[in-house]
Amino acid sequence: MADARRRKPEPAVLDGVLERLSAILGPRLQTGEAVRGQHANMATSVNRQPPDAVAFPQTTDEVVAIVRLCAAAGVPVIPYGTGTSFEGHVNAPFGGVSVDCSQMNRLLAVHAEDLDCVVEPGLTRKALNAQLRDTGLFFPIDPGADASIGGMIGTRASGTNAVRYGTMKDNVVALTVVTPDGAVVETARRALKSAAGYDLTRLFVGAEGTLGIVTAATLRLHGIPEAISGGVCPFPSVEAACLATIATVQSGIPVARIELLDALQVRACNLYSGIGLPETPCLFVEFHGSAAGVIEQSERFGAIAADLEGGPFHWATVAEERTRLWQARHDVYWAGFKLRPGAKTIPTDVCVPISRLAECVVATQADIAASDLVGPIVGHVGDGNFHVGLLVDEDDPAEMARVHGFMERLVHRALALEGTCTGEHGVGQGKAKYLRAEYPAATLDLMARIKRAIDPLDIMNPGKILPLDG
Amino acid sequence: MADARRRKPEPAVLDGVLERLSAILGPRLQTGEAVRGQHANMATSVNRQPPDAVAFPQTTDEVVAIVRLCAAAGVPVIPYGTGTSFEGHVNAPFGGVSVDCSQMNRLLAVHAEDLDCVVEPGLTRKALNAQLRDTGLFFPIDPGADASIGGMIGTRASGTNAVRYGTMKDNVVALTVVTPDGAVVETARRALKSAAGYDLTRLFVGAEGTLGIVTAATLRLHGIPEAISGGVCPFPSVEAACLATIATVQSGIPVARIELLDALQVRACNLYSGIGLPETPCLFVEFHGSAAGVIEQSERFGAIAADLEGGPFHWATVAEERTRLWQARHDVYWAGFKLRPGAKTIPTDVCVPISRLAECVVATQADIAASDLVGPIVGHVGDGNFHVGLLVDEDDPAEMARVHGFMERLVHRALALEGTCTGEHGVGQGKAKYLRAEYPAATLDLMARIKRAIDPLDIMNPGKILPLDG
Repeated sequence: MADARRRKPEPAVLDGVLERLSAILGPRLQTGEAVRGQHANMATSVNRQPPDAVAFPQTTDEVVAIVRLCAAAGVPVIPYGTGTSFEGHVNAPFGGVSVDCSQMNRLLAVHAEDLDCVVEPGLTRKALNAQLRDTGLFFPIDPGADASIGGMIGTRASGTNAVRYGTMKDNVVALTVVTPDGAVVETARRALKSAAGYDLTRLFVGAEGTLGIVTAATLRLHGIPEAISGGVCPFPSVEAACLATIATVQSGIPVARIELLDALQVRACNLYSGIGLPETPCLFVEFHGSAAGVIEQSERFGAIAADLEGGPFHWATVAEERTRLWQARHDVYWAGFKLRPGAKTIPTDVCVPISRLAECVVATQADIAASDLVGPIVGHVGDGNFHVGLLVDEDDPAEMARVHGFMERLVHRALALEGTCTGEHGVGQGKAKYLRAEYPAATLDLMARIKRAIDPLDIMNPGKILPLDG
Repeated sequence: MADARRRKPEPAVLDGVLERLSAILGPRLQTGEAVRGQHANMATSVNRQPPDAVAFPQTTDEVVAIVRLCAAAGVPVIPYGTGTSFEGHVNAPFGGVSVDCSQMNRLLAVHAEDLDCVVEPGLTRKALNAQLRDTGLFFPIDPGADASIGGMIGTRASGTNAVRYGTMKDNVVALTVVTPDGAVVETARRALKSAAGYDLTRLFVGAEGTLGIVTAATLRLHGIPEAISGGVCPFPSVEAACLATIATVQSGIPVARIELLDALQVRACNLYSGIGLPETPCLFVEFHGSAAGVIEQSERFGAIAADLEGGPFHWATVAEERTRLWQARHDVYWAGFKLRPGAKTIPTDVCVPISRLAECVVATQADIAASDLVGPIVGHVGDGNFHVGLLVDEDDPAEMARVHGFMERLVHRALALEGTCTGEHGVGQGKAKYLRAEYPAATLDLMARIKRAIDPLDIMNPGKILPLDG
């Protein structure tokens, strides 16, 4: 939709906008090469496309001013959180102004009785939880990086707790959004549920900044569980681990986390984090509840695992050991480099119905081997979602050709199993080409109509999600 | 948006469309007065506005044909499930064709391992659960009526289990929708989560048929709990019952149902269902889990209730007694008539943050008394959502004036407490006038843009949600 008519703004037009923005923001508008470079895509092989300038607003009113000035001149606006997304979401393919929300990072309110809080978009998930600690509440969504809440809203982020607590779509109550015309939209009231009109909250969650810039969010919080237990259970095969996951979910055990690491990923974690696990597929599990409840959940899971020849179960009985295990799980991105020092990581994710997960993971492992690639697998298997973290030599064109072939087959394999091209990373630039395979034309046409209705000038993060012709 | 330009179609145009529809549908297109009357709003005081004809499609293709013929001639299309909505959703203020989905009522697939199923829109919730019984799974959303899944999607329905299992927005995975241009949109794949583009699923959930007609839905299912326990706990005041609810939710007890009946509602239930409860505010509670888990949950709830001078707790230890209690809870609509035989019921609902619930209910009780009205209150208090079921004499203009004043104050009271004008009934015609108080103009403008982008001819259920001028 965008590429066909989108051009970079004329230099004179751009300069005029930057001059006026500078008058409003002073030193909080920056155009130096280093800062611009830091605000292009960093984490993956998607090419870096820096913006023309970076703005650091501190209020909704300043965001309104930025958007209005840019819109009037046809200059793109690219919302920016921490830049930890994988699919080129923060790139500026048509230039424009990156709106870095890191100076809008306050926790505005905590309503403990209502289990909610109100935050600015630049607050990161770890900073939020640190500030919540005294309340006995926490915000459960944990993508690998210490991402900003605004970025997590944009990509509909998820993580290890989603099987129990849901994803961003389930944990955002209301949003304040500056739309491409500079209007300030409140999507919902603070009530936990409403049937009053279209669900604008969910429309902005996962829109990747293409429909507006979030300037405040009301989030659902959860009580820190009275007791937590967990550990690691090795399995003879990926199939057995997946079957154990299905049985656990189906039997109603309210597992809080259930994560699959394939044998190669376990090896990487052993090398990086020294956790000394058997190098076979493992499930990392965690249970939340009352003291008696987590014991019961653990025992029931143990019985399911034993039935599938899983075990012996390594209990993390003390909190320190649990923290060490989950830190190792969270460090899989860094652990991968141990498998191929000097390589670059290309992370990708797909999601399938859980019944098709074993089939998808096993076929993907075989494809990695046949493609002569190094790619450990880690998955939020309770959701049917898994990641491959390819370790690649970007300077080897033959290898990169094999990488691209593999990525394409991975997506089409997931789609053939009724899955989706991305469970939690988002579309950005990297996966836009797959949407035509995932959805019928009528679905993409509907998405494009919504985009055009809200952003007729294609100002807001152009070239993402729907960079289709015509 | 609609009223300003919307007119009933010319009789000759309408006749032409009906003739062509009749050629496609045969006897499944009906124009008799009785059938048309049955397809106008039934349940409330919103005036009845019958459609010009009722179509009974059996396939998505037939729905496409109906929508295309109507769209080409500017004839409104009104999706119809069971007609049990309260706010005039099924009325035909501009005439047109009611599309009754009752003959599209098949359970198309059950994927037990994935905890999902695929249904046609006319299947009712009770029929779905009856067909699921052998699978050990159930669909938890239970509005009072035996509504159709399509209607429940339209109104973003909820019910007594929402505190544990969420509402329709949380339990719909994917939809097939015929949009106003006659295209067939698939909103999502069957994977449990996805970050692949805009969340069209949630856009159609709660859109009240104004953006398209749902012709298939993939729903999340849940395991029938191993054990269920519950009962009724009386409280000295509404405040105490609300505080017990807050403490229960906050302490992480995964209560499955927690329902407040005020003293008048308890009296009505005693009269109608003979359950012999003390006529004081009561909480009906239910716990789902393992055998040990539900005992622990019950004990923890009992301790919270006792701290707030609730009790004695009436345990429903045998399944028959539990069924009797919850049947009484589900029959509150009918029980109300015992308080004023011959009266008509006008049900309404609002939803506030749970911390404001006691204040809102107490002020509403006082308003009912001051307005000289009869209005028992029942609430899904875990969500901050409650209903008033006014018993009125429609033929008494003075009383009806007091009713309308009360309804208006109820909504504004909820809005002043950061709540919403409807938690689960929807907007329809009855509550459209309140959206301007609930949302800023920019929010309504955005909703209207989306409506126009998807339904530029205003064909689909016109006059609902956004019948604004201009």
